[in-house]
Amino acid sequence: MCWYSTLLWFTFAQAMARPTDSQCVLDLKRERAKCSFNKEEITNLLDGGVEKTANRRQIEDLFLSDPEFLDPIRPEYMSHEDRYANELRKACHMVRKFNEDEKVQQIVGQMEGIRTLMGSGLGVALTKDGNPLALHYVMFLPAIMGHGTVDQQAEWMGRAWAGQIFGTYAQTELGHGTFLRGLETTATYDPDTQEFVLHSPTITATKWWPGGLGKTVNYAVVMAQLYTKGTCHGIHPFIVQLRDEETHQSMPGVTVGEIGPRLGLNTNDNGFLRFDHCRIPRTNLLMKHSKVLEDGTYVKPANDKLAYGTMVFVRVAICFDSYRQLQRAVTIATRYSAVRHQSELVPGAPEPQILDYQTQQYKLLPQIATIFGIHFATKDVWDTYNEVTGNIQVGNLDLLPELHALSCGLKALSSGDASSGIETCRLACGGHGYLSSSNLPRIYTTTTAAITYEGENTVMWLQVARYLIKSYREARQGLALHHSVSYLSAQPASTHTTSQLSNAGLVEAYKATVSSMVSETAARLQEYCDMGRPFEHAWNSSSVLLVKCAQAHIRYFTCEKYVVGVENPGLSEGVQNVLRQLCRLYLIYHITLNQGDFLRSGALTGYNMSILEGEMCRLLAALRPDAVSLVDSFDVHDRILDSTLGCWDGNVYQRMFDEAQKSPLNQTDVPEAYYKYLRPLLKANL
Amino acid sequence: MCWYSTLLWFTFAQAMARPTDSQCVLDLKRERAKCSFNKEEITNLLDGGVEKTANRRQIEDLFLSDPEFLDPIRPEYMSHEDRYANELRKACHMVRKFNEDEKVQQIVGQMEGIRTLMGSGLGVALTKDGNPLALHYVMFLPAIMGHGTVDQQAEWMGRAWAGQIFGTYAQTELGHGTFLRGLETTATYDPDTQEFVLHSPTITATKWWPGGLGKTVNYAVVMAQLYTKGTCHGIHPFIVQLRDEETHQSMPGVTVGEIGPRLGLNTNDNGFLRFDHCRIPRTNLLMKHSKVLEDGTYVKPANDKLAYGTMVFVRVAICFDSYRQLQRAVTIATRYSAVRHQSELVPGAPEPQILDYQTQQYKLLPQIATIFGIHFATKDVWDTYNEVTGNIQVGNLDLLPELHALSCGLKALSSGDASSGIETCRLACGGHGYLSSSNLPRIYTTTTAAITYEGENTVMWLQVARYLIKSYREARQGLALHHSVSYLSAQPASTHTTSQLSNAGLVEAYKATVSSMVSETAARLQEYCDMGRPFEHAWNSSSVLLVKCAQAHIRYFTCEKYVVGVENPGLSEGVQNVLRQLCRLYLIYHITLNQGDFLRSGALTGYNMSILEGEMCRLLAALRPDAVSLVDSFDVHDRILDSTLGCWDGNVYQRMFDEAQKSPLNQTDVPEAYYKYLRPLLKANL
Repeated sequence: MCWYSTLLWFTFAQAMARPTDSQCVLDLKRERAKCSFNKEEITNLLDGGVEKTANRRQIEDLFLSDPEFLDPIRPEYMSHEDRYANELRKACHMVRKFNEDEKVQQIVGQMEGIRTLMGSGLGVALTKDGNPLALHYVMFLPAIMGHGTVDQQAEWMGRAWAGQIFGTYAQTELGHGTFLRGLETTATYDPDTQEFVLHSPTITATKWWPGGLGKTVNYAVVMAQLYTKGTCHGIHPFIVQLRDEETHQSMPGVTVGEIGPRLGLNTNDNGFLRFDHCRIPRTNLLMKHSKVLEDGTYVKPANDKLAYGTMVFVRVAICFDSYRQLQRAVTIATRYSAVRHQSELVPGAPEPQILDYQTQQYKLLPQIATIFGIHFATKDVWDTYNEVTGNIQVGNLDLLPELHALSCGLKALSSGDASSGIETCRLACGGHGYLSSSNLPRIYTTTTAAITYEGENTVMWLQVARYLIKSYREARQGLALHHSVSYLSAQPASTHTTSQLSNAGLVEAYKATVSSMVSETAARLQEYCDMGRPFEHAWNSSSVLLVKCAQAHIRYFTCEKYVVGVENPGLSEGVQNVLRQLCRLYLIYHITLNQGDFLRSGALTGYNMSILEGEMCRLLAALRPDAVSLVDSFDVHDRILDSTLGCWDGNVYQRMFDEAQKSPLNQTDVPEAYYKYLRPLLKANL
Repeated sequence: MCWYSTLLWFTFAQAMARPTDSQCVLDLKRERAKCSFNKEEITNLLDGGVEKTANRRQIEDLFLSDPEFLDPIRPEYMSHEDRYANELRKACHMVRKFNEDEKVQQIVGQMEGIRTLMGSGLGVALTKDGNPLALHYVMFLPAIMGHGTVDQQAEWMGRAWAGQIFGTYAQTELGHGTFLRGLETTATYDPDTQEFVLHSPTITATKWWPGGLGKTVNYAVVMAQLYTKGTCHGIHPFIVQLRDEETHQSMPGVTVGEIGPRLGLNTNDNGFLRFDHCRIPRTNLLMKHSKVLEDGTYVKPANDKLAYGTMVFVRVAICFDSYRQLQRAVTIATRYSAVRHQSELVPGAPEPQILDYQTQQYKLLPQIATIFGIHFATKDVWDTYNEVTGNIQVGNLDLLPELHALSCGLKALSSGDASSGIETCRLACGGHGYLSSSNLPRIYTTTTAAITYEGENTVMWLQVARYLIKSYREARQGLALHHSVSYLSAQPASTHTTSQLSNAGLVEAYKATVSSMVSETAARLQEYCDMGRPFEHAWNSSSVLLVKCAQAHIRYFTCEKYVVGVENPGLSEGVQNVLRQLCRLYLIYHITLNQGDFLRSGALTGYNMSILEGEMCRLLAALRPDAVSLVDSFDVHDRILDSTLGCWDGNVYQRMFDEAQKSPLNQTDVPEAYYKYLRPLLKANL
């Protein structure tokens, strides 16, 4: 009977016609028609060249066309056990495909390729909630390469690379994270049997967090305090068998399991591990750097700075991962903002695209700008890393402290900016950003993990601050400084309230401002010391301000590399024009967010600020027509976006509706729980 | 064999002795011994009096001692369907307990009590991931009370209150949120049959989000565009039966289901709803305000501002919810920071409690301060609300615009501050904050939802800005202003760079700064208009700055109420002392975060800032010894905290370890997925 429709209704319904999905699709088409630059050129720029773009697309096609990587239902619908089983299935298939398919090997390459597969590019589409075998490739194999002797590599690498054994890297403990000297697990040498005895003396000594450790791997590189002949020699890496290769049962003296659910990454199989006087052969100590001889004699490493390299590598990888995740989020939010019509700009006029609201532009465009900022700054550090790695081999360690500081700072800046940027994008989608099918929840929960892993960000900032203060003091003693901090040698910026607001002028303002912040904070630190406080206490009492100095320094570094990056003479006019606007937006955006620092340093005046605010508003309007094309140029495959709100075609509402129909609860009209709980209650209340 | 322990090892293990859990417990005891104030007095202050504290504790005991509210395993381990069934079970038990137990009725009271049970106090402990029956009590019943005639209330309230039917409130649509006029669902009156025909003309007209709608409720109050005699009269509320009372099957013309998984609140049973020419009796239009007569004549409401009241009520409730959630997060993070030892302040010394680090104090203490700020400001608005509600009844609507602006602004401020504060607390716990067993993930995902629901925050800020600009212009015309914006009448602050940094002086600085921001932004707006842009475009072009004005206004309002609140003469010396320090910290903290505004307005100088930064550092140190006692005074029950990191006794590490053992994956050593996927791969690779 409800199918009946009066003529009256029909007339009104037509008058009420609203944007349908085909109009959403038209919206995106119209946006794309406005593009002022060559999108492919930006794609190539970010990939690192035309061939790299082609290679990436080939790998994506190869894996995304494989139906084995599809999920039967969204993982969010599954129980914890089923989720794990589902991702393990795909992870095993990935290894098999890599081991067995020659075409795949040819395109993907070796080690580097499989890491790419598991990282935040394609990996997020294949094993959405974390790959339980990832650490085997990303940490276990590199640890053996990095710490094992040639003999040890021969013994372990072949089997590990072939996937006959799987391993992880077990460092952090329940009670101990970033501070390595605090680790409690002991490896005590017993010369009688020529074995190490691994033991977890307390509950806080339990290894906690390593990915794949819970139920998946059968080996691990375990970091433990090495004791021999009554002396502790600090943390060393040991290969330990955790599970029987035939039965997969945990070995005697080993208690291993998974640590339970998390905010995200629930199928990484993060685990715990305890040792109860577990014995391993002496030769399982990875002895490339230090050795324990048969009689228990400890032989020191020739150079203990070599471990630096891996840490820098991992941190640079986090920077790249961070901006890739931000690319996904801003692509989703920008496309959705172009098809979403809401409210009114002019009373009575049709509802505008929400991308037309300045407040929405202010949420999204700075995120687009951030991606290029992180890209240029990280690329610079990456190049320095390669240079330094070359230098280490010829014994020159001069650049290491600078590289360490830059990689710490950039890891903190990019993971922090990406996480908050992703949340901004999620919230910019209103309530729908809260839906799993938007994929913004997962992008956030995955990315925010990087704030606390591989060096907690506040600790990272304090490392940068330590380097800054040390450099500042060296400059006062007339010593030469590394390039990135050479500005600290200059006399404190004379109050040069420049009317010069060019990019170069603004970078100078950034530089003058950090310089002034560092000198003020150094003076405060000295004052505390002069009052008789020990240096460590003075340092702690200044640490909130020290963190601000470190952040300002890395921001300045990023701005400088950004300005250089967009002036690349190889860019076409259209691309250069839009990148210059984004760079300009980035420079001004961060000045307005931290205007107090710039005013206090005297580098800019209130009048300058007012002018810059006006320019920022104009830049938002100027970039608005290119917004959709900019996110298109990130070239994120629909399967990697995995979002009802962000798909290429803009058919948002139909997709959301269709996706909801797949819920297991929607497979019947009346759910079982009704009969069990609700019906008895309703009847009882009659 | 691994049980063997050499004497050598034993000696080292003793030398290596680390904080054990009993030491964690001791840590908290030592913290509590330092308390400088009467904790119970603060508990009473926040509850609203001694009796309210007693009543709250009674209700908590009554419900938390009931084993029916326990989960068999953590909900995170369950499938989506099982989670829903588990929460529905508890929700039904809650209703039953309330309907059948006289003691419960006596203590809990009526409507008000059951809302408390479902809100963010006790509710989060009983139905952790959202209660599918909550909206029946929180929205459906109030909507009938608010919009139904006496006859309609008689017809529906009895059955609904008794739980013979359950309902929800269906307003937002797939394509339409905050902007009500945009809603597309139509209710067209057919005088021949005296029915309304409900219809969803497009995919975007699909009702989307209402809690309980998916599989639980059988009725809803549906908001739809009312058409009669060829004219649309805008949005009106209709009672619609969605499911058969006997079979629970969806009614003809009704398509209803759940919308799929979300970042949080996964058992709220948020649903979608489409109508296909679905007919309901004319008398199902709730006609307290407007009516449709039998012949289709539309009778307008006498006063269309009456709906304001409910919105203000809901927003004030969100403010209270927000700070309760922040209380939970900061309680967890502060207790954990007192038992967590990490790194070193002084080389070689034992690892200090992380609460001793200034950077950690800077993360946590401002959150504690925020709780009291939101409390005092919200209480003030709540009192005004009660005053206004009285006035409306005697026909005085003068205070409504001010109340509307304050409640919009405070909703945005408190949901925003609480969400970011909770994330700060989570990240302050390092990696462990990422574990579900810390409960910080769920506290965040629940609280952040409030940023986009019940009035998206950016929209809220722009409402405040509209009120500010209107008031500013009225002041220029010599009109009298409401109390909270009376400062806009004053001449723009003369640059009075005060050396007076007392609380009163700082509140003056806040006031002068907003005033200056508003006047600068109003001038910019005027300038755009003078250039010939229509007002709406000028408004949009200034909206980023307008939002900043609105935020500064509400921050100032909060600071002012805070200063008044802590000077309450009824407080004991100890309590007043610690609250004054917190208030001072809050005032300075937000000045330093927005120092640019204060410098540009001329209200404070760079020299002032430097002094205030020094004072802030001293306040952090001064408040540090009371930190644990302060969070104790929030009196959050361990079951409501639901956190391995935050429990009262501090036995953190043992709890984390024990909690992990409960994972279903840990019930066997070797998981099924091993046999299915991993073993075949390992064998294939041999």
